[in-house]
Amino acid sequence: MDVMYLDNAATTQTHPTVVECMIKSFKNEYANPSSLYDMGLTNEKMIKRAKSTLAGQIHCHPEEIIFTSGGTEGDNFLIKGIIEKQREDRLKASRIITTKIEHPAVKEIFKLYESYGIDVVWLPVKSDGFVDMDVLQKAVTPNTLLVSIIGVNNEIGTIQPLQEIGEIVKQRSPDCFFHSDYVQGFMKEPIDVKKCQLDGLTVCGHKINGPKGIGAVYLKEGKNIKPLMLGGGQENGLRSGTENIQGIVGLEAAIKIWENPDVMKKIKSLRDYVASELIKIGDVKINGPIDACPSVMSVSIKGIRGEVLLHSLEARGVYISTGSACSSHKKEKNTVLKAINLDRDYIEGTIRISFSALTSCAEVKKAVLIIKEEVEKLRAFLNR
Amino acid sequence: MDVMYLDNAATTQTHPTVVECMIKSFKNEYANPSSLYDMGLTNEKMIKRAKSTLAGQIHCHPEEIIFTSGGTEGDNFLIKGIIEKQREDRLKASRIITTKIEHPAVKEIFKLYESYGIDVVWLPVKSDGFVDMDVLQKAVTPNTLLVSIIGVNNEIGTIQPLQEIGEIVKQRSPDCFFHSDYVQGFMKEPIDVKKCQLDGLTVCGHKINGPKGIGAVYLKEGKNIKPLMLGGGQENGLRSGTENIQGIVGLEAAIKIWENPDVMKKIKSLRDYVASELIKIGDVKINGPIDACPSVMSVSIKGIRGEVLLHSLEARGVYISTGSACSSHKKEKNTVLKAINLDRDYIEGTIRISFSALTSCAEVKKAVLIIKEEVEKLRAFLNR
Repeated sequence: MDVMYLDNAATTQTHPTVVECMIKSFKNEYANPSSLYDMGLTNEKMIKRAKSTLAGQIHCHPEEIIFTSGGTEGDNFLIKGIIEKQREDRLKASRIITTKIEHPAVKEIFKLYESYGIDVVWLPVKSDGFVDMDVLQKAVTPNTLLVSIIGVNNEIGTIQPLQEIGEIVKQRSPDCFFHSDYVQGFMKEPIDVKKCQLDGLTVCGHKINGPKGIGAVYLKEGKNIKPLMLGGGQENGLRSGTENIQGIVGLEAAIKIWENPDVMKKIKSLRDYVASELIKIGDVKINGPIDACPSVMSVSIKGIRGEVLLHSLEARGVYISTGSACSSHKKEKNTVLKAINLDRDYIEGTIRISFSALTSCAEVKKAVLIIKEEVEKLRAFLNR
Repeated sequence: MDVMYLDNAATTQTHPTVVECMIKSFKNEYANPSSLYDMGLTNEKMIKRAKSTLAGQIHCHPEEIIFTSGGTEGDNFLIKGIIEKQREDRLKASRIITTKIEHPAVKEIFKLYESYGIDVVWLPVKSDGFVDMDVLQKAVTPNTLLVSIIGVNNEIGTIQPLQEIGEIVKQRSPDCFFHSDYVQGFMKEPIDVKKCQLDGLTVCGHKINGPKGIGAVYLKEGKNIKPLMLGGGQENGLRSGTENIQGIVGLEAAIKIWENPDVMKKIKSLRDYVASELIKIGDVKINGPIDACPSVMSVSIKGIRGEVLLHSLEARGVYISTGSACSSHKKEKNTVLKAINLDRDYIEGTIRISFSALTSCAEVKKAVLIIKEEVEKLRAFLNR
């Protein structure tokens, strides 16, 4: 059976070109970059080159890039790193701010610190997922230590106006650390970390057809944070551990694929096609704003249960999700959909469809037909 | 020029068979193991199978295995996880114990907690690198919270008697968490974590011809520790982040290569050959005990400087090191050699030669000839 994989916001297939680059690297670039000899130095240079490639995409200095094992490490490293750098007495008098629609990696860290008695503000969002600027303005106080806002939401694709947010944050609390989990936005929605006045940004490889187990953070020069991992002192002491050279090579190769504007152009046309076709079913809502990031779409189909549809689609080779894969372990479900105040009828019937550089028009067309058929079957069954 | 790579204690070349397994996995096993559909569940099963393979090697239950991004993460996760689980008042009254010959990943964590005012005991070692059991016996007090001992030293190969150590630790402080950094010992020196009464063990992939960026820890069932990374709740909430499936596949494939007893048999014969040849040079010491782990050897050559020899060997294609790659970022050098009380003359002239499953007899023979020639040249030059 053909596989129509449309759950690319959960993870993507590693691109064959990325795998090719990694195979070559496995063969030649194995020496430890911390070694004193040429083979090690060559690999250190290669890592620097990859940092330049990444820095070019987000408009920072290559030395502001630190490689991690993925998005979760990046969020933990930056957020914990800022908070745990503070003296406890200062921390107890500080505020930290995030939104109600964060990825679990950010949400769980904030919940931890909230349990320690730190003042946490969970910003509400409007029905299209945007942070309310008036609420933000009031929330950011001079003692606000950290603001972390998901740049592109992983379920409904809302692209937050990070530049506008950055202005408010820095105006109200100039020393506040402004962070964004940009795992879903990286290479999909251009970003300039300097213009946005960001101090930290989290990205990862496996959402852009790169390998799993590799990610990176941008950490603004001069920002002093506590390392999550101590040891050999790699990454200027900020992230110890032998560098994952092949992961880094793979991440760089993935960036080179996505920097071709045709990739997002194709994804946008696929997204528009799916939206226009599914809306025809009737009693269907596309969640999020009209200008959401095209790589991920949230579709609510009244009268069915998303999980039932997921399994009936799976039986026909179409792979979608009902929400964040990283929430499947959690008791709390649908926090994003609740935050945008979606009707309960629609929440139950929500699926997430997401695209990558490897998604083809043919598979999407076939998948849309199958989705329509399965929705019709499920609705007919429920109305008997 | 032929490459004779003999710095396998720093890192190894990923075995072609491992790369093959990963290539297949990249193609087919890309779905997120947290997904609700079959493709995700298949990958979850594959991860469980890899845990069984690993558990079989160290004699624990598969559910006691947690995958990490490598040895450094493993050490940070387990050691910090135990310490930070304690209430601060209890912690201030606790003792933690390690040795003077730990890898920087362990050493730096202990130094951090020492700076916080926690009572740290740095166990001295004897001239062959063994922990003195009498000193250990006296050091472990009922309020000792954690003992972390490197199982196989990364420079001189000393294999600590972990079973004997475990008995002393548990007898003196039954609730004490007994941990070992086993990155250099894994698949080289058999271990039974239950017999050793270990509560935690750190291993990684890239020292056994597996990929970089993957490791694992054993955490004894029932031991409650604080996660280093919060998020999607993977690994029973203990290690969030999308699983590095291809890294896990690669690690499992590497274990399967090393479980063939011929690998260590060959390495032992290579080690014995190198030792017997280099000793002939004169004024040469092989550091560590006679029954050191054969995969790593420390050789001290009087009258030369290790780093100079390293570069003259490099020019002829022979790659060795002067010590731990992870110490090359540090100001403190040669801590292991100082801990075993090696004469300064010898410390300066110390090199580390280390082997992997891919090391061939031919390359070792050629390398030995070159080492002899270069030592002779350097000594002649210095004696002019």
